[in-house]
Amino acid sequence: MVQENIVTAAMLAIGDELLSGRTKDKNIGHLAEMLTLAGIDLKEVRIVSDDEDAIVEALNALRSRYRYVFTSGGIGPTHDDITADAVGKAFGLEVTHDARAMDILGAMYAKRDLPFNEARQRMARMPVGSRHIDNPISVAPGFIIGNVHVMAGVPAVFVAMLDNVLPQLEGGKTMLSRTIACPYGEGDIGSPLTAVQKAHPDTVIGSYPKFDGKVYSTDIVIRSRQESDLDAAAAAVETMLTEVAALKTKGTSASGSD
Amino acid sequence: MVQENIVTAAMLAIGDELLSGRTKDKNIGHLAEMLTLAGIDLKEVRIVSDDEDAIVEALNALRSRYRYVFTSGGIGPTHDDITADAVGKAFGLEVTHDARAMDILGAMYAKRDLPFNEARQRMARMPVGSRHIDNPISVAPGFIIGNVHVMAGVPAVFVAMLDNVLPQLEGGKTMLSRTIACPYGEGDIGSPLTAVQKAHPDTVIGSYPKFDGKVYSTDIVIRSRQESDLDAAAAAVETMLTEVAALKTKGTSASGSD
Repeated sequence: MVQENIVTAAMLAIGDELLSGRTKDKNIGHLAEMLTLAGIDLKEVRIVSDDEDAIVEALNALRSRYRYVFTSGGIGPTHDDITADAVGKAFGLEVTHDARAMDILGAMYAKRDLPFNEARQRMARMPVGSRHIDNPISVAPGFIIGNVHVMAGVPAVFVAMLDNVLPQLEGGKTMLSRTIACPYGEGDIGSPLTAVQKAHPDTVIGSYPKFDGKVYSTDIVIRSRQESDLDAAAAAVETMLTEVAALKTKGTSASGSD
Repeated sequence: MVQENIVTAAMLAIGDELLSGRTKDKNIGHLAEMLTLAGIDLKEVRIVSDDEDAIVEALNALRSRYRYVFTSGGIGPTHDDITADAVGKAFGLEVTHDARAMDILGAMYAKRDLPFNEARQRMARMPVGSRHIDNPISVAPGFIIGNVHVMAGVPAVFVAMLDNVLPQLEGGKTMLSRTIACPYGEGDIGSPLTAVQKAHPDTVIGSYPKFDGKVYSTDIVIRSRQESDLDAAAAAVETMLTEVAALKTKGTSASGSD
């Protein structure tokens, strides 16, 4: 397979609430979609609890392996918000109250006539050398250190921070995709589709079964970075579907089986 | 912290479609909730692509570290369904067409007058020595090998398979939880809540900020396996909130700040 200019990424979602089921993560799916659009391959996601050792270990595994890492969660003002310290530990960097973050947060709380207390000041903590990720929703910034982008867990803030980060990323060539609606279930097309995939190694062909309660069908999704490869594989899938249709007309099985 | 009878678990969600954003995972949150109810601690989740090396590596990391592992996805009839082979490789076990699974699937397809072809037979493949997980929705079974539970990615089937698995698990003592609605944002309670957490090490106290567009508030969630520890920590939180309220009455800041 041609591996030109592949930019990879991983996500580390942090938070006990994700692992207890109390909160249903919404950030993984959003990041996945946005990176796909940017031509960046999300290769792995991990979810860990608010545990420093777990965060450090996962972060070091991911940041050494992938071009970009995105974290969510654990950058608020309470004791269970330990992401900044864990990231600092992973990088072997001191974590301090960032001067500019202190200014921004201090000004915001002053304007709102609220005390800029120790808890709120925690939100200014980041490893030395970090760059800010602006937070247009609730002011407290995320930060970038090395290839790691530390963002909030609250979905609205995660989305806003990611919008600020995406234009700065070195995007790979955008992955193109084409979806072909197949009126048969996976069982009817599994073997011939395998043959198509083998004959078109520069594409990635996925099949996604659907069942509406009565009838099985399949979405066949072809992905490639080259339009010409995509065209060739799509043509092969269409030919395959015509052949399957002819076989089914001869045989006993109807469309809509799994 | 008392660590009596803690049963841990991890999840491995498998599928390119989860990492491209095409499919939004629904199984992680469901498993998390069900394990919490069963008194089992979900400690880590990983999502990897339909890549054998990635699956094998993640599975071996998780199965050696946690009591139970649950996988989702990659057990259908198409070429991108490689979970059974990857699990076999991780365990160093041969993967064959399980005789009983062949019988069940063969009978089902015969009844529906559909060919039990090579693709459909793929769904009978599992590592030798596996036990079935019954699938009341679409028949093709999941399987259990060692401490690993291999289940479907389609949410309705995942849910049904998990229902069959849960009664067989050795449950830990159920984690109890209590939620206290706090009318203040995290910034107002961060420091005193840290003190409560330190004074009640046999509980895990989480704080979850809420913002309705105008007013910040917080859900404080206390978790413990001991009712008495929960009661003590909850009482301490209530006292803390009374103290914060008194401070705010004296000071300038209103409730509803972050």
